[in-house]
Amino acid sequence: MKNANINIYPQKALIKFEGKNFQGQIDIAPRIFGALKKGGISVGVISQQTIENGVSVLVEENKSDKAVLILEEEFLEEKNNGTVGAIYSIKNLAVVGFISGEFNKILSELHKNKIFPLFLNQVSSSGRINLIITENQSEITKSIVETEILDKARGVHLVLLGHGNVGGTLIDQIIKSHAEILRRKNIDLRIVAIANSKKTLLDKSGIKENWREKIKNSETETRIDHLILYAKENHLENLIVVDNTASESITKNYSLFVKNGFDVVSSNKIFNTLSISSYKSFRRLLRKNKKNYLYETNVGAGLPLIDTIKLLHLSGENITEIKGVFSGSLSYIFNRFSMRQAPFSVVVKEAMEKGFTESDPREDLSGNDVGRKLLILARELDLINEFTDIKIENLIPKELQNTDKESFISRLEELNAHFQEIKEKQKPHHVLRYVGHLYGDLQKEKGILKVKLLSVEESSAMGQLSESDSIFEIFTESYGDRPIVIIGAGAGAKVTARGVLGDILRISRAKTA
Amino acid sequence: MKNANINIYPQKALIKFEGKNFQGQIDIAPRIFGALKKGGISVGVISQQTIENGVSVLVEENKSDKAVLILEEEFLEEKNNGTVGAIYSIKNLAVVGFISGEFNKILSELHKNKIFPLFLNQVSSSGRINLIITENQSEITKSIVETEILDKARGVHLVLLGHGNVGGTLIDQIIKSHAEILRRKNIDLRIVAIANSKKTLLDKSGIKENWREKIKNSETETRIDHLILYAKENHLENLIVVDNTASESITKNYSLFVKNGFDVVSSNKIFNTLSISSYKSFRRLLRKNKKNYLYETNVGAGLPLIDTIKLLHLSGENITEIKGVFSGSLSYIFNRFSMRQAPFSVVVKEAMEKGFTESDPREDLSGNDVGRKLLILARELDLINEFTDIKIENLIPKELQNTDKESFISRLEELNAHFQEIKEKQKPHHVLRYVGHLYGDLQKEKGILKVKLLSVEESSAMGQLSESDSIFEIFTESYGDRPIVIIGAGAGAKVTARGVLGDILRISRAKTA
Repeated sequence: MKNANINIYPQKALIKFEGKNFQGQIDIAPRIFGALKKGGISVGVISQQTIENGVSVLVEENKSDKAVLILEEEFLEEKNNGTVGAIYSIKNLAVVGFISGEFNKILSELHKNKIFPLFLNQVSSSGRINLIITENQSEITKSIVETEILDKARGVHLVLLGHGNVGGTLIDQIIKSHAEILRRKNIDLRIVAIANSKKTLLDKSGIKENWREKIKNSETETRIDHLILYAKENHLENLIVVDNTASESITKNYSLFVKNGFDVVSSNKIFNTLSISSYKSFRRLLRKNKKNYLYETNVGAGLPLIDTIKLLHLSGENITEIKGVFSGSLSYIFNRFSMRQAPFSVVVKEAMEKGFTESDPREDLSGNDVGRKLLILARELDLINEFTDIKIENLIPKELQNTDKESFISRLEELNAHFQEIKEKQKPHHVLRYVGHLYGDLQKEKGILKVKLLSVEESSAMGQLSESDSIFEIFTESYGDRPIVIIGAGAGAKVTARGVLGDILRISRAKTA
Repeated sequence: MKNANINIYPQKALIKFEGKNFQGQIDIAPRIFGALKKGGISVGVISQQTIENGVSVLVEENKSDKAVLILEEEFLEEKNNGTVGAIYSIKNLAVVGFISGEFNKILSELHKNKIFPLFLNQVSSSGRINLIITENQSEITKSIVETEILDKARGVHLVLLGHGNVGGTLIDQIIKSHAEILRRKNIDLRIVAIANSKKTLLDKSGIKENWREKIKNSETETRIDHLILYAKENHLENLIVVDNTASESITKNYSLFVKNGFDVVSSNKIFNTLSISSYKSFRRLLRKNKKNYLYETNVGAGLPLIDTIKLLHLSGENITEIKGVFSGSLSYIFNRFSMRQAPFSVVVKEAMEKGFTESDPREDLSGNDVGRKLLILARELDLINEFTDIKIENLIPKELQNTDKESFISRLEELNAHFQEIKEKQKPHHVLRYVGHLYGDLQKEKGILKVKLLSVEESSAMGQLSESDSIFEIFTESYGDRPIVIIGAGAGAKVTARGVLGDILRISRAKTA
């Protein structure tokens, strides 16, 4: 292993000497030196700027008060006539010295971690670098410098909100893949916090196995500000907050995280479907803070959909139309219902039993989930549509929309006649699909967004769909009438968690390049 | 517009004063000051390090020779006894001073562009920053600082090799999308060089319309070292070289580009199919230089294939099998041949006329192109297969493999009987597809790679393929027996160029985050 050879010299102080019109005056520094020498004070670094009216002198901390007194005496006259302003000391400093050709890369890393040296000096001939920083930052500074010099793995620190189906699977995947990601990409993914709505598990060195039990026994109450504080107090670098909840209130904290140096990854769709004004103002905040917000799993789970659309759109490709079956549960329901003789209610119950639907299947049958996904895709194309612009065909009859969940499920048979009729009225070799469709003149401010039950040809790509697969057809100008088609499991904890991990890796990868 | 308020103070020199055992000696600096003062030389910055044995003094350049003489006289005794080593001046320096809270971000940008300040000073109270750099770097330094302070667009400078079908289309796309990418992502994509095998067109401010005519009239001979020198001499930041040739000799220069600060984007497949040892050593070089090499269009043109596989693999998803129709020309040939009564030779000629095949159709019919694509995908999974490991079914009869192109085309009919027989021998409702297939135990060092003509069910996704579309089926552990399927135009200048632009934007985006 290479030796980073980093030296820390603690217990230093900087004497700051402010004044005006020092420019070109060559007698200030010698007088400072002379006076301090007479007082028996050894001077480390002295820096006087042509451009700026001030002199800095590095001394031992325990001599700093004395140094200030000596200088105030020496420059008494100048203080009285106003040439010299304040003379004061900044204590609790340390010098960190090392040799590296990667100076600026190191400084960039320090900056990302909110460490701002008070003084820097690079001696280009020897590659020797000295930084003066506050003493309590010396350890994290050392660690960052070591990472850079020794090409040590980059620690990426994750705060995970929600550990249900997707969140829990993600945690297991991260723990399992940790060694391999470290080996292959030199990225050290550390879960430093797992939080549910009530309790938080913290471990700055990285949460490993047995997290389920540990969080059960945790006595730390979940508070977003405490999570941020924990990261700050432990000087954790490369922070990503990952939202795997379905909570709207959690999304209200995204801005706070970004302002505090976090990138954001989210499988939670809600934030992207709020008003277009909050959508846009968050993007401005991200840009200002140079932070990322990735949410590939908002649509199509682990399928490479959102990034594909983003890149096509950004590269100037005119996307003219997007359509597809966006919901795994509704895909399953209508694939089965179209193929079999069973009544609609039986198929819905089967989907519920297999865990494809939300616990209240009306979440799916209302079409709101598909609508949200469609809206998210539309907004990727810079369309400023609102959720209320979407024409959604609600599959639940009016009279069942406002009952409670149990009575809805018990009355599912009431839907049968309606859907049976639709099914039988189709042309031959046609099947039912519940489709999201974005079209219109997508160069304008708003597109047309429709979510509805369609009868499609059995032999078409959409008609060939089976199980709970999703399908997305993206039409563009260059691709003409042949769309890009992406098919695959568009739901499920495993593939969604894998997609979230993909987003985490996208961000980690950008940090390492 | 904000004012960056950047001051450049030119014509400075640094006097370097080297020696040993200065530590804690407080009489060196005062003596330096005193001697220079006596000689009437104004001192700008002086820096003495506790840790390092040296003192630096900033003076006006035209006084620097005199300053060295004065100091050599003052320290004559110490020079003779060896306490003081060399005293010398570094001329042609400038001080760049500005106020910014983004110090380290700026330094990181300077570093990326190979600008290493000889001295840096940050005064944390005022945010005032001073850098000493070589004078000929002062303008690019100013430009970089301005970009950061004013949030100006980031200039990304492109060197484009090859301007044939794909390369030419790409250039047009970049010029057309320039304003939109600037507006939406603050990225200023500038084409600073276009080169073909003979001539080069250079314009550091960005090549715009009429490039075809201009390169025709250019008298600059193409030389890779000159391209790199041009970028260096003009201090161009954020450099990407884009290879849209099909030349093996061009790929030999990738390392040189990377060592000189370029990221690499390539639609050229050759480099990724050379020996696994050169494949791996280039990856090590990339990692060491923290540079990217993207080649999404090597397989499936603009389809989101390679990045998807990369992320799945990196996130720990076990990819168990990949298969598909990888070649647009062979997709077209067998889609048509399966559906129609026409003889094989007629369909091949049709594909040639439509421009789907290479000018010598044996490039396609040999299966080597599909083999290369399959190998590239296999290597993304860390398999160390070589090209020679691939079992390729060559569609050209032995006796026609070594004739010249014209006589091959004139004897195309000789293939008809063979393919007609294969077609007729199929089970009902089956069609022919030329398929690349990666399988085996992909956790081992090598996978099984086969390229062959298959008879598949008409109703399968692969059987439903039409026109010149490609299809890729990716089987993974989490997705189980339901693959991720990606279908779309896998060839063609427009979609390939768009995919290359996507790679350029991926890199540019990472630079801006």
